[in-house]
Amino acid sequence: MTEFGGINGAESIIRAALLSGLDTCFANPGTTEIPLVRALDEIEGVRPVLCLFEGVCTGAADGYGRMANRPALTLLHLGPGLANGVAYLHDARRARSPVVNLIGEHATWHQAADAPLQSDIESLARPVSAWLRRGAVSTELARDLQDAIIAASVKPGRISTLILPHDLLIAPGLLPGAPPRLPDPPRICSERIATARDALLNGSPAAILLGSHALRERAQPALARIRELTGVGLIAEAFPARWERGLGRPAISRLPYFPEMAVPVLARYQTIILAGAPSPVSFFGYPGTPSHYITADQQTIDLAGPEDDVETALEELAESLQVRGGKSSSPALDKPSSTDFPSLDPDRPLTGRRMTAIVAALLPPGAIVMDEGHTSTGAHTAYFQQAAPHSYLTQPGGAIGLGMPCAIGAAIACPDRPVVTLQADGSGMYTVQSLWTMAREGLNIKTIICNNSGYQIVGIEMLRAGVTSPGGRARSLMDVVGPQIDWVGVSKGLGVPAVRVETTTQLADVLRRELLEPGPFLIDAVLEKE
Amino acid sequence: MTEFGGINGAESIIRAALLSGLDTCFANPGTTEIPLVRALDEIEGVRPVLCLFEGVCTGAADGYGRMANRPALTLLHLGPGLANGVAYLHDARRARSPVVNLIGEHATWHQAADAPLQSDIESLARPVSAWLRRGAVSTELARDLQDAIIAASVKPGRISTLILPHDLLIAPGLLPGAPPRLPDPPRICSERIATARDALLNGSPAAILLGSHALRERAQPALARIRELTGVGLIAEAFPARWERGLGRPAISRLPYFPEMAVPVLARYQTIILAGAPSPVSFFGYPGTPSHYITADQQTIDLAGPEDDVETALEELAESLQVRGGKSSSPALDKPSSTDFPSLDPDRPLTGRRMTAIVAALLPPGAIVMDEGHTSTGAHTAYFQQAAPHSYLTQPGGAIGLGMPCAIGAAIACPDRPVVTLQADGSGMYTVQSLWTMAREGLNIKTIICNNSGYQIVGIEMLRAGVTSPGGRARSLMDVVGPQIDWVGVSKGLGVPAVRVETTTQLADVLRRELLEPGPFLIDAVLEKE
Repeated sequence: MTEFGGINGAESIIRAALLSGLDTCFANPGTTEIPLVRALDEIEGVRPVLCLFEGVCTGAADGYGRMANRPALTLLHLGPGLANGVAYLHDARRARSPVVNLIGEHATWHQAADAPLQSDIESLARPVSAWLRRGAVSTELARDLQDAIIAASVKPGRISTLILPHDLLIAPGLLPGAPPRLPDPPRICSERIATARDALLNGSPAAILLGSHALRERAQPALARIRELTGVGLIAEAFPARWERGLGRPAISRLPYFPEMAVPVLARYQTIILAGAPSPVSFFGYPGTPSHYITADQQTIDLAGPEDDVETALEELAESLQVRGGKSSSPALDKPSSTDFPSLDPDRPLTGRRMTAIVAALLPPGAIVMDEGHTSTGAHTAYFQQAAPHSYLTQPGGAIGLGMPCAIGAAIACPDRPVVTLQADGSGMYTVQSLWTMAREGLNIKTIICNNSGYQIVGIEMLRAGVTSPGGRARSLMDVVGPQIDWVGVSKGLGVPAVRVETTTQLADVLRRELLEPGPFLIDAVLEKE
Repeated sequence: MTEFGGINGAESIIRAALLSGLDTCFANPGTTEIPLVRALDEIEGVRPVLCLFEGVCTGAADGYGRMANRPALTLLHLGPGLANGVAYLHDARRARSPVVNLIGEHATWHQAADAPLQSDIESLARPVSAWLRRGAVSTELARDLQDAIIAASVKPGRISTLILPHDLLIAPGLLPGAPPRLPDPPRICSERIATARDALLNGSPAAILLGSHALRERAQPALARIRELTGVGLIAEAFPARWERGLGRPAISRLPYFPEMAVPVLARYQTIILAGAPSPVSFFGYPGTPSHYITADQQTIDLAGPEDDVETALEELAESLQVRGGKSSSPALDKPSSTDFPSLDPDRPLTGRRMTAIVAALLPPGAIVMDEGHTSTGAHTAYFQQAAPHSYLTQPGGAIGLGMPCAIGAAIACPDRPVVTLQADGSGMYTVQSLWTMAREGLNIKTIICNNSGYQIVGIEMLRAGVTSPGGRARSLMDVVGPQIDWVGVSKGLGVPAVRVETTTQLADVLRRELLEPGPFLIDAVLEKE
């Protein structure tokens, strides 16, 4: 098993991972990672999942972390391998997902040679890592990993990156002791709860802006009670990492993407209580629009930050309101927009709205929805409020192409739950290799390509910037036709069966049928303009 | 054209690029880059090339820089967009290609809001950038770009990265003055030439290790003369950025990849003269193998570094030897291994050796070969010495997946020359989106997938580490079957016609036919083990 009688550094790392309950590794290894490949091979318990591009590894780790509530490992090849994964580590950081990256590195004695793959790994890792360490002693690598796991497990999750020089991986390792108990999130002091309670009882319009675990299962009875007692508005942040949603759960509206739509939503309220969400800001800075949506005229109450124990805070707030007898002080301003399903006449051409409605209507209970539909789904996601209960995932970091990788991680974390991915076509091409891993692992993922043949957001932003008829060079940077991508051919080529649909009836028939089947499937949904 | 009567910052940048002779921009823009999209649209002269993933942009810029000898622009979307391009900027840095990156960024006033796409762009850019600046004043952006171009134009090339906040792009810009004359590379002092000359004349075995412009066209008559006069060995570094190669050019052997093969090649010589190549090191650090190949017993003469004027140095060395009458002092030790084409019996199964030989035999004069064949071509590239004269490109940085993007850049830089890409299958999946850009731009690129169904290098390295029969979890990290990738289906789906071949005759017939046609084509060459 090893050259030393005992275990080597690589083996100590895999054993330490197992001791802490980590059992999944999204990997694309190379020469420097061979000792870890051997250790994964020889030690039973950690499932390696090969991804054909590192962005698939890190995006999968994001999805896994959101659904499993514990980190997956990634295994990446030096600086360039990490670099390919940075964009979706950025997304994972914004989603507050727990992730532990293992980055192979040249042997310590070889680093001065400036070999071709040598680079400044720390500089690449720092922007996305809350915890970053370079292994320095082979017998301490297992302890390094435990530290990485602890750091990543700050609820809801952070990103740890451990750099592992090759010579340390093959030098003697040391079996780690039992992992320490992970810390609880900080409790919310009673003064903050009292402040929120008093604001809710003072009669002026108030809303709670929800993020992080405020959108998880446990928080929802408290949210329902708070609304019942006070009529408070419940608004989800624009891009929730994970939102337990659907029939039987309290109706929560979603903050729109564009500032000219989001600002009026919040302007109705005198008081905004932040519960797991940071103070909302514009996704981009547009001239004449402020960065922060909440104005100086409004009162902001910071009930709980994204890493605080927001569930307990909401429960205590509900309790405190109950004791005071509550009263419906806040006018009901936030009624989520109508979520009646549109009349789905058969054989109508598909639009983003019709597609979203059909997916929501057919969603099986317990499904996981990964929505990277961007311009095709963004205005229509209220339909999911009327869907069967499900986990709804979005993309808090804005690095496009996350959808399919994230679905892989979610499916591996929750093998008994179907995953439905709404995937914008332009973004989907970033990580099209994901389809191969879905096929290889037999994952129950139904991918719906929202096929509008372009980066429609670029066109929309050109319009917003005042360009109504862009010229040929600008159009060449936003349309993805010429050639038209044959998603069905690409998908089949990567091992995932697929069909193309153009009408409401076709989409509904195919989706209804395929949701009864295990394994991956892709539907290329050709969309007309709304 | 702009709100100010004059030009805005974005327009000043595009005009400055044109003034410096830059006319190509590999782009994947988003909201923060809209002003540059508008400027590209409104100002005639810079060709935007849309790539469906930023790694394709940067890899294309690498290939463009090597073939055009001037930088292309890339246009990337904030930190995550840059991150997706970092791996091939790493390769470009190792290839010493000129590249100028334009990175969009949030408006200066919006950065404190920590919006979703905010990240530490400098930290991501620094490992790959010789020059790095954040634009700070809108009227100085054009000057910033000129500085970036000058910095990138240090021969053979460097990487410049300019970060461009959105508000500066739409604020008033200033037309730049004429670009300053670019600096010449430093001349080599006569003492270094005399030292090399004396070593070549002293009778002990000597070799010149060639890199950078020592492998370009201009240097080759001098190399031929030097060898004629002294019998010196001529050896190319293991991964040349660009090597003008083929019949009629001096035979130059290539340093092997694995240290156990490379060290004996160099050990035959008492003196190693470095001409455009750094002192050679092992690609990875293997236990028991030194980092540096040249031993303390050998004499190293640093004639010219990769950024020095190595062509003039070699010409002066040849001249100086001629004056001294020269003498064939060095035994001819370096005869390149036999490059006779193997007997290509018809209808034999393809192997890496046979495939490489067929491609070399059929290569049209003036072709560009991008060789990312890795294990399939690495041992057989001497065949290209017998091919028609061509430019031969490899991957000096080791970040896999460069092949197809690099071919795009080469084809755009040299529209009249056919490009043939030897693309390992595992690596090719990293940047499979490249095929779409080849189709869209109608590029004359013939891509040959070296299809051995796996990351064969991982298996080889497992063997080298002593693992003769890896278990299932290890095998799952090196084979790329289950499912088998249908490269023909994927390629057609992205707009590039394709066929699968399994025999010598099939490959030769298809390649011969397709080389007569314009536009892209893909050949999925199924290889048997050697």
